[in-house]
Amino acid sequence: MRITVIGAGNVGTRLGAALHTAGHKIVQVYSRDIARANALASHIGAEAVSSLGNMDSSAEVILIAVNDDAISSVYAAICDQIKAATVVHTAGSVSTSVFAGHGQYGVVWPVQSLSAAFYTDLRNVPLAISANTPETLVQIASLARSISDHVYEISDVQREYLHLAATFANNFSNHMYAIAKELTDAHEIPFEILKPLILGTAQKVQQMDPAEAQTGPAVRGDKGTMMRHLELLRDRPDVQELYLTMTRNIMDSYGQERV
Amino acid sequence: MRITVIGAGNVGTRLGAALHTAGHKIVQVYSRDIARANALASHIGAEAVSSLGNMDSSAEVILIAVNDDAISSVYAAICDQIKAATVVHTAGSVSTSVFAGHGQYGVVWPVQSLSAAFYTDLRNVPLAISANTPETLVQIASLARSISDHVYEISDVQREYLHLAATFANNFSNHMYAIAKELTDAHEIPFEILKPLILGTAQKVQQMDPAEAQTGPAVRGDKGTMMRHLELLRDRPDVQELYLTMTRNIMDSYGQERV
Repeated sequence: MRITVIGAGNVGTRLGAALHTAGHKIVQVYSRDIARANALASHIGAEAVSSLGNMDSSAEVILIAVNDDAISSVYAAICDQIKAATVVHTAGSVSTSVFAGHGQYGVVWPVQSLSAAFYTDLRNVPLAISANTPETLVQIASLARSISDHVYEISDVQREYLHLAATFANNFSNHMYAIAKELTDAHEIPFEILKPLILGTAQKVQQMDPAEAQTGPAVRGDKGTMMRHLELLRDRPDVQELYLTMTRNIMDSYGQERV
Repeated sequence: MRITVIGAGNVGTRLGAALHTAGHKIVQVYSRDIARANALASHIGAEAVSSLGNMDSSAEVILIAVNDDAISSVYAAICDQIKAATVVHTAGSVSTSVFAGHGQYGVVWPVQSLSAAFYTDLRNVPLAISANTPETLVQIASLARSISDHVYEISDVQREYLHLAATFANNFSNHMYAIAKELTDAHEIPFEILKPLILGTAQKVQQMDPAEAQTGPAVRGDKGTMMRHLELLRDRPDVQELYLTMTRNIMDSYGQERV
C-alpha cells in the first residue's frame, strides 16, 4: 500500500520503519520539525514535509501518529486533501469518532511502549485494530498483519476498557516499583535486590492467571505483618493510604476479612 | 559446612539442593510429612526425619525454612538439642529476635519466589542476610556466597522495609495485573494483548529508575482520560476507589494538580 505517516515520534518512527520493511511505499513523512521528518523519511525512501498543506493525494492510508490531543486538529488540517484515503490513528485512548464523517477510517494501536531510539520487533507487539466498515477492516487488518503476528480486532468500547486495563497493568504496576524504590532508597537498601522479583512476577503471569499467582500478607490474611507494614509507613501517610486501599482490595477479592 | 534443613517446602527444597550442590554436607532433612522429608533427603544424601526430637548435634548450621508463623515453635522444640549450632531462618517478615538468647543466629532470605517443583538458579537470586555477631555474619555470608552471587548484608530494620518494598513490587503489582485481567475478561478482550506490556514494564526498570519510566494519563495530567476511566468503572466502586487513590498518588508524586 501507499502510506503517509504523520508524526515522526516514537510510534510514527517504529511503524513507518516496519511498514517500509514490510514492502509498503511510504509516500510522505510529516513532522512540524523538518529535521525529524527528514531523519525518518531518508531512512524509508519517503518525502519529508513540515506543512500539513501539501498532502500527496496518492496515499491510500494516512497514519496519524501524533499526541492524543493533536489528532483532531491534524485531521481537520488535512481532511479535504485526503478524502479518498483511509485515515488511521494509533492512540489507545482516542475514539474513532474523531474521524466521523470521513469515508474510511480506523485505529491501529500498538499495545506496547515504543521508542524511536530503540528497535522493537513489531512482529511480537500486539496491534489492536478497529475500522468503521467491513471493507476498511479488511484493509487495516492486512496492513497490521504485514508488520505484526498479533493483530486483534476490537470495538471502540473494548479499546476503552483495554486502555483502562493497560493503565493498571503498566502505569500502576510501574508506580508500585517507584514506591518500592523510594522505600529502599530511604533506608539505604540497594534497589537491585528487588529487580529479579519484579521481573519474576511479570514473567509468572505470562503463563499463569495473576489472581492465582497472588502471594503475600493480604491474600494470606496475615494481619500481624500488615499492621507492622502500616506502622513502618507512619511518616508517609500518602503511601500508607495506598497500602491500605490496596490491601483491603486484595483481601476483599480473596474473601479475607478486612484489616 | 554440616547443615540440617528444617522444612522441605519450596524454600527448604531449593536451598537444600543448592547447598548440597555447593559441596556442603546436609546432615538431616526434617518435615512433619516423612514422605516429603524423604523426597528431598534422598536427593541430597541426608537423613530424613519427621520428629523434632532427634536433631543431629553435629550440624553447624540449622536452616529453618518453615512457614513464618511456625518458626518460633520449631525453634522452641529444638533449641536445647542444637545449642552450639548457628540457627538461621529464611523469612523476610520475621525478626531475628525470635532466636534471642541463642548463641549464634541470623537470617538468609531469598528475595524471589522459589518453587520446589521448578529449578531456579540460586546464583542469580538475591540473598538478604543478617547475623547477631560479626563472627556469625562471616559464617552466614560464606554459606550464602557459596550458593548465590548476590548476597546483601542488611540490618533487621532494613529487612522490614525491604519486605514492605517487596510487597509493593511483587504483591501489589501482581494485583494490578489481576485487575487488568478482570477488566479484559469482563469485556471479552484477550488478556494476551497485555502480556508484552507487562513484561516490557518490568524489563524497563531493570535499567531505568521507575519514577523516570512512568507514563500514562496521571503523570501527564490528562484529566479527560482519567475522568473517562472513572466513568468506565462506575459499576465497580471498589476498583474505582483504587484507581482514584493510585491516580492521586501518582499526580502528587509528579506535581500534577489532583483530579
